Amino acid sequence: MNPWEEKGLDQLCETLESDSYGLEAFHRLFYGKRLDVLSLPEHACQTAERLNFKLKSYRFPSVPEQLRSPRLIRIGAIQNKLVLPPSSPVTDQIAALHHQMGLFLDVAGQCGVNIICLQEAWTMPFAFCTRERMPWCEFSESAEHGPSIRFLQRYAEQYSMVIVSPILERDSVSDVLWNTAVIINVDGTVLGKSRKNHIPRVGDFNESTYYTESQLGHPVFETKYGRIAVNICYGRHHPLNWLMYGLNGAEIVFNPCATIDTLSETLWPIEARCAAVANNYFTVAINRVGTETFPNEFTSGDTKPGHTDFGHFFGSSYITGPDGVRTPGLDRIHNGLLIAEVDLNSCRQVRDSWGFRMTQRPELYAESLTEYVKKLQHKH
Amino acid sequence: MNPWEEKGLDQLCETLESDSYGLEAFHRLFYGKRLDVLSLPEHACQTAERLNFKLKSYRFPSVPEQLRSPRLIRIGAIQNKLVLPPSSPVTDQIAALHHQMGLFLDVAGQCGVNIICLQEAWTMPFAFCTRERMPWCEFSESAEHGPSIRFLQRYAEQYSMVIVSPILERDSVSDVLWNTAVIINVDGTVLGKSRKNHIPRVGDFNESTYYTESQLGHPVFETKYGRIAVNICYGRHHPLNWLMYGLNGAEIVFNPCATIDTLSETLWPIEARCAAVANNYFTVAINRVGTETFPNEFTSGDTKPGHTDFGHFFGSSYITGPDGVRTPGLDRIHNGLLIAEVDLNSCRQVRDSWGFRMTQRPELYAESLTEYVKKLQHKH
Repeated sequence: MNPWEEKGLDQLCETLESDSYGLEAFHRLFYGKRLDVLSLPEHACQTAERLNFKLKSYRFPSVPEQLRSPRLIRIGAIQNKLVLPPSSPVTDQIAALHHQMGLFLDVAGQCGVNIICLQEAWTMPFAFCTRERMPWCEFSESAEHGPSIRFLQRYAEQYSMVIVSPILERDSVSDVLWNTAVIINVDGTVLGKSRKNHIPRVGDFNESTYYTESQLGHPVFETKYGRIAVNICYGRHHPLNWLMYGLNGAEIVFNPCATIDTLSETLWPIEARCAAVANNYFTVAINRVGTETFPNEFTSGDTKPGHTDFGHFFGSSYITGPDGVRTPGLDRIHNGLLIAEVDLNSCRQVRDSWGFRMTQRPELYAESLTEYVKKLQHKH
Repeated sequence: MNPWEEKGLDQLCETLESDSYGLEAFHRLFYGKRLDVLSLPEHACQTAERLNFKLKSYRFPSVPEQLRSPRLIRIGAIQNKLVLPPSSPVTDQIAALHHQMGLFLDVAGQCGVNIICLQEAWTMPFAFCTRERMPWCEFSESAEHGPSIRFLQRYAEQYSMVIVSPILERDSVSDVLWNTAVIINVDGTVLGKSRKNHIPRVGDFNESTYYTESQLGHPVFETKYGRIAVNICYGRHHPLNWLMYGLNGAEIVFNPCATIDTLSETLWPIEARCAAVANNYFTVAINRVGTETFPNEFTSGDTKPGHTDFGHFFGSSYITGPDGVRTPGLDRIHNGLLIAEVDLNSCRQVRDSWGFRMTQRPELYAESLTEYVKKLQHKH
């Protein structure tokens, strides 16, 4: 690995030398603020070190109100590499991923995480680049009682932790597939699911070959810790998608992703953060990490010859507050768990301060978009 | 001025020391690419140096097509301080700003700029923090034949340059005021105008006290150089506003602003850049520069005592391409002219590549927003 591949933007910032004025100013301007580090139980830190995954934690500021008590909760985000190569038997790959995730979730539980989200399609290699059906479609499962859901229910219950589990969903009656996030509640029951609204057809991300757009709209889930929603991967490029989760009441929007350096690394710090600002909620951008190599060659529609991997998933998962202040990201090569303690009251506080909801003019846009759709239809 | 006030994020990046791998990686990840510098005529550079304004210029990459010739044009953005203090007679202030702008526009013309945009309400101090009517309302003028428009028409014609002139507009019959950008065409005629769609009511930005929301929608202007639109200041926080300019055909959206460090400096590199990515057009974010001190004390709704200035306009104007690659910004204390040579064909190229228009599902959002508006009305 080249030296530049080891460090993402955040790690580069850490190594940059400057006078103390300059470095403080840089943190203020780039991250919005230098967040306090949240201290975590010693044994959790030791486990993380032993398992060689990066454990990072921050505390967002909380401002007291007179009528509402603070709503302090801990949000978690996991990024992880595959355990076995994609050429291994499907059952072995799933078992290895489950085992590894169990270890991570134990650490998250010990750190008092209340709501956690895993990376997109965490139960499988991100094999859609191959356009092959088998064995990749075999990783699909039921959102209500598939194996990974059953596996996670135990952890949700044990740690009173809401778990957002992004999987490849199959409806076993119709055999329709979706890219879905399942919300597992603190009692281990399935609270609901959210499906990917926008499906990429870019380069190796031939995902429309595998599954179709959600017809579930923009569901927001009321949990005991707060109102959450899930904007899956490519949906982060669509501001309207972020918007509707906000208008439907979300206080945290998780954005589980799988995206690679050459495609989107420069956009990564921008989009989920801008959505947090525009909608005044927390966003949790999670990216897969590592390079995945497939058994058979495939091409990428970029004139280059066949190859067996499609680039490096650069991790760099990060959390942004409703005012745009963000954590540094996890790194671009290691497994990691990012934890942020936040006060969900801050969403409303920032909304009252900036006034975007008041000045939003939704009726203007409902009308303009309706007109636009009519024009598109008329032209056809 | 404290040392940290002299440098914005871009100037801090310049001074940061690192190994060459790290610095190159940082540029790639932060700006998306290190853009080539565009060389400019020697006499223009000398004039800029003599007038002590920063002249920066970049060239965005151009990819050839078979059927369309490249549409290379030069975009300009001007940020400037007041010339005279706000306590000076109105006529003197206007004359001094006109004189200074004339010198800047001569340089822009000599550099071959085709379309240029000035900062928000460039003809006056940003006095809305005072909530005083006089003399500030006296700076308002007709968008069709006001003094600043007449002044600029000569430059537009002389240099075949489209000039976007943001002013405080007054309709002299109704005495309604708007925050307006006037588009002056290459023949010196007024091509049209765009008014601010979203008006801030945040802290010292009491702008709804002065003028009202646009009812002109999201106009896009066809010029000989390309299709342009103007999203004025606070409209940059509203993704729907950016969206509609894009759907209406804009290839460049100018975002003339006046915003201060404590309010928005950390958000500044995010929003206009994210809009460029989401809509695959060029955005030109322009911020006023300097600190403006008013004759009478005012308070800011932040529990602090009365004072006579409301913070530092931090400049840092920058241009982003349709793929998110951006120029470094102008600095935070000097007058400046930023020039970018771009190929407008790249908008469509990036649209075809990322597929956001294809995957946008406008009918879903037209419907969702219409439902949302109905719910709001029903609850009242």
